[in-house]
Amino acid sequence: MEVTNRCITKKSPLDDGEPKESDFEVKTSPLALSVSAGSTDVIVKNLYVSIDPYLHNRMKRFSSSHKTINYLAAVAPGDEIDAYGLAKVVASGNPEFEKDDLVVGFISWGEYTVLKEGTMFRKFDPLGFPLSYQVGILGFSGLTAYGGFFEVCKPKKGERVFVSAASGSVTLLKGKLRFDDAFNYKEEPDLKSTLKKYFPDGIDIYFDNVGAEMLEAAVENMNTFGRVAVCGMISEYTDAGKRAAPNMLDVVCKRIKIQGFLAADHMNVYSDFISTTVDHLRTGNLQAVEDISCGLESFPSAFIGLFRGHNTGKKMVKLADE
Amino acid sequence: MEVTNRCITKKSPLDDGEPKESDFEVKTSPLALSVSAGSTDVIVKNLYVSIDPYLHNRMKRFSSSHKTINYLAAVAPGDEIDAYGLAKVVASGNPEFEKDDLVVGFISWGEYTVLKEGTMFRKFDPLGFPLSYQVGILGFSGLTAYGGFFEVCKPKKGERVFVSAASGSVTLLKGKLRFDDAFNYKEEPDLKSTLKKYFPDGIDIYFDNVGAEMLEAAVENMNTFGRVAVCGMISEYTDAGKRAAPNMLDVVCKRIKIQGFLAADHMNVYSDFISTTVDHLRTGNLQAVEDISCGLESFPSAFIGLFRGHNTGKKMVKLADE
Repeated sequence: MEVTNRCITKKSPLDDGEPKESDFEVKTSPLALSVSAGSTDVIVKNLYVSIDPYLHNRMKRFSSSHKTINYLAAVAPGDEIDAYGLAKVVASGNPEFEKDDLVVGFISWGEYTVLKEGTMFRKFDPLGFPLSYQVGILGFSGLTAYGGFFEVCKPKKGERVFVSAASGSVTLLKGKLRFDDAFNYKEEPDLKSTLKKYFPDGIDIYFDNVGAEMLEAAVENMNTFGRVAVCGMISEYTDAGKRAAPNMLDVVCKRIKIQGFLAADHMNVYSDFISTTVDHLRTGNLQAVEDISCGLESFPSAFIGLFRGHNTGKKMVKLADE
Repeated sequence: MEVTNRCITKKSPLDDGEPKESDFEVKTSPLALSVSAGSTDVIVKNLYVSIDPYLHNRMKRFSSSHKTINYLAAVAPGDEIDAYGLAKVVASGNPEFEKDDLVVGFISWGEYTVLKEGTMFRKFDPLGFPLSYQVGILGFSGLTAYGGFFEVCKPKKGERVFVSAASGSVTLLKGKLRFDDAFNYKEEPDLKSTLKKYFPDGIDIYFDNVGAEMLEAAVENMNTFGRVAVCGMISEYTDAGKRAAPNMLDVVCKRIKIQGFLAADHMNVYSDFISTTVDHLRTGNLQAVEDISCGLESFPSAFIGLFRGHNTGKKMVKLADE
């Protein structure tokens, strides 16, 4: 059977400023839903795709990140945009996969993806949870949080933890998610004073997703032997002029550790991550908050919304029912 | 016996810009070289005093470092300037010390120091080396290098190491001290290209004493899983407008660790540090390069010279012979 596969590509490199709807376009191409003899390709129908800020760097003409690791490589205009997600096998030349298997891995902003041998995808056990959890809380996003917090920050009981950005309203964070406190950083004119107010005894651990002034303010408010896990810096991605210039004298005198990390480096704790997360989900200690847009056409707005704070919880696009 | 104790104090807080001779003055006061009954004071005659850039921050009106650890506290105008050094006991009310004992610890920019109980000083074994070694290579400076390199950077065989600033001419560094290569960073217009040239395969470990553009350039040239030990940032101390704004996207994607440290945190490796350093000194693998100014009046110029690159090797002031 042949279908018309629709996918989203970008028309030109993203440069400074927020991405716009007009940066993207729908591209169609015929796709045979069968694998030729001898090929080890696996053709999948995409169900859920994770939408993440780091993709902005991949879509730029130039970024220092392009040459560091496969899944941060540049995505050129017209190219398939690969991203983490969940899909269902429709045809397979690989003996490890068969029709109707569900897999997670690097699929694409499209209706179907042809997965080549050697690319990162695998079957999974849904463990009784909604499939979308595999893309968010039990997927790469969850592993990023778990690895960054436990492996990089090494928390000790009683320590004070600051996370930016939590992707939710203050009410949601303090209510349903039971954070001790929360604020909207986009409404705070002086982040150093804000953090001083919320952390009168200082910050021991900072999980940074924002960068720039937020990182500077956190370093100023950190305690001795504080740890910063640098996960991302969304405030800098769309503004080349923005850079964090944390006070390095503070870094020395308070013996602060600032460490960048990627989830992929923490596969050694993958089984701990899954068992711990599943336990907390089952007891209700942890709740998955998801923000799911539907349909191929929603990719651009779902992505753009990340930079405007539109999402509440883990952002993804759903392309089809199982 | 009573003497006239002369010491150097500063006249006003140091602010932006290089320190000047006129910022300092000689202060004299009578000092009885005996301890009153019941006192546990130890009076010492200062022999060698270490001259270190971090003192600039202590002499400022305000610095975020003032409240972090005792020996980084503010030094107010007119106050005794305490600093690491070596001295000889002339009178003691403390049963652990007696006349003519040699001690190292926090003494002062003066001819004599009255050491109160509870301050940091101790006897030592010179191990057959010149006394000045206790202030430099076998003292706090040596421990700073050892702790920062082995404990913070955790070097692996074959890794590429960059140290700034090495406090010596290129000829000295490449000749006598046998560094693979060296350059004068004050003469390099584009540090990023310079490091690219000297480290075509990237930097694994950066021991930072300079800060600002040098730290930015090092981060740009670091390899995956690189480590930066932040020891100091001499280029920023005298220029409040200078700050390092390293590319945090590099920090994430290359999983770089930037960690501040102080020698005092690494007392756990003190005996390893001494035995390793002594071994290397005895085999000639390691050489102590010292730059010693003589006499109380030389304190200001010795200190000011640090910020102008005048010293070659460990800077100290010698006040008296043993």
